[in-house]
Amino acid sequence: MSDAKKQGWEITAEERDALYKIIFSRRDVRGQFLSDPIDDSVLSRILYAAHHAPSVGFMQPWNFILIRSQEVRKKIHTAFTKAHKEAAEMFSQEKQEIYKGLKLEGILESAVNICVTCDTSRSGPVVIGRTHIDTMDSYSSVCAIENLWLAARAEGLGLGWVSIIDEAELKKILQIPEHVIPVGYLCLGKVSHFWEKPELESAGWLPRIELEKLVNFEYWEGKPAKEHDSFVKQLKEDADFPLTAE
Amino acid sequence: MSDAKKQGWEITAEERDALYKIIFSRRDVRGQFLSDPIDDSVLSRILYAAHHAPSVGFMQPWNFILIRSQEVRKKIHTAFTKAHKEAAEMFSQEKQEIYKGLKLEGILESAVNICVTCDTSRSGPVVIGRTHIDTMDSYSSVCAIENLWLAARAEGLGLGWVSIIDEAELKKILQIPEHVIPVGYLCLGKVSHFWEKPELESAGWLPRIELEKLVNFEYWEGKPAKEHDSFVKQLKEDADFPLTAE
Repeated sequence: MSDAKKQGWEITAEERDALYKIIFSRRDVRGQFLSDPIDDSVLSRILYAAHHAPSVGFMQPWNFILIRSQEVRKKIHTAFTKAHKEAAEMFSQEKQEIYKGLKLEGILESAVNICVTCDTSRSGPVVIGRTHIDTMDSYSSVCAIENLWLAARAEGLGLGWVSIIDEAELKKILQIPEHVIPVGYLCLGKVSHFWEKPELESAGWLPRIELEKLVNFEYWEGKPAKEHDSFVKQLKEDADFPLTAE
Repeated sequence: MSDAKKQGWEITAEERDALYKIIFSRRDVRGQFLSDPIDDSVLSRILYAAHHAPSVGFMQPWNFILIRSQEVRKKIHTAFTKAHKEAAEMFSQEKQEIYKGLKLEGILESAVNICVTCDTSRSGPVVIGRTHIDTMDSYSSVCAIENLWLAARAEGLGLGWVSIIDEAELKKILQIPEHVIPVGYLCLGKVSHFWEKPELESAGWLPRIELEKLVNFEYWEGKPAKEHDSFVKQLKEDADFPLTAE
């Protein structure tokens, strides 16, 4: 009997498949939020999932600022609108038309907004694993966001990440000090439905890239050698694996 | 009937609990790797999970460099060893002793190494959602890493993130061009067992922070108001929720 079994931590095939189903049906939600409140117990579970993300040197650099105040949200929404207009100007004429038609946030209508931060000073100046790559601490907060996102999906809730906003403006509104990075500004809530595919894929903005084009061997431009034939064949065969909708 | 149900995408309570079990039992594995190979079908599924991470503007900026060559791994290991020595010097005398006793990577003994990158030029110069926050593309690659990590755990495999390495050195060894960021260098493989708790927690390096200390309301230092009483109570009650081992 393995240690994993002894610990009651062996993952069954059904549990494994549940993870894949949740991963493949997770969406970046913007336009389908309902105003219904979220149960305390659900929000609590989701935050524990985030808190158990991996973190560099176990520093747990995250905070979770829960924003329900409409006054604060309106300030955030104003900052978003300003950035959104600036962004539109950056696209080519053709893309601009599609861009302007996209709904890209649910700040005011979702049940709650959550700003996930990274406190770079947490646990002192020297952190195991951050000694050579400075960004490792904010990467930990991103892992927390992905855990939170998957847990939300598992609870039937939608989540959208708002990144079209000036960071300095966001910090000012939320009174975030210099040494803290607002890594992600999230909208969370019940939804009318989840899209079958990512919205930008459905809207024809960009296609899903074939996975085998993104896999390299031994180094950056390394092509598959003869010994990789069976693996590359498997990758191609699994192209429809992510389509779990019944 | 909700759209989620119609799509066959409603998540059951059992499926939700499976996600939490996987999240809470995920570990950063360094010292428990076995050399057994990974099945093609398992590695393929794990990479699909990574490929279905959220990405800013649906740019899918990631590549997955699979490294099996012992020659390449030895170069990486040499670069790690150099950085590791430099890092040790940075800690206080007391912490240095613990630090030196920690095994922090499984580069040579894991079944495969995977470098997950971020191609900042993918899908052109202007990306929806990256117009105001430059780091959003590498954050997408981090989300892919977290998906990959959870999928690995669900398949019974261990994963460790090696971040004690000079980035320029890593790019040189793997021939990664200027515009591509090596976001994470991962070791993946079968393991003898998973630790009951994170190693750095068990080693007394740092304690797990109480979640309620990391939750703020409306702004950075916002304390809970009267209306948040029931939620804060719930957070405290759920303190033992993550302990899923039976």
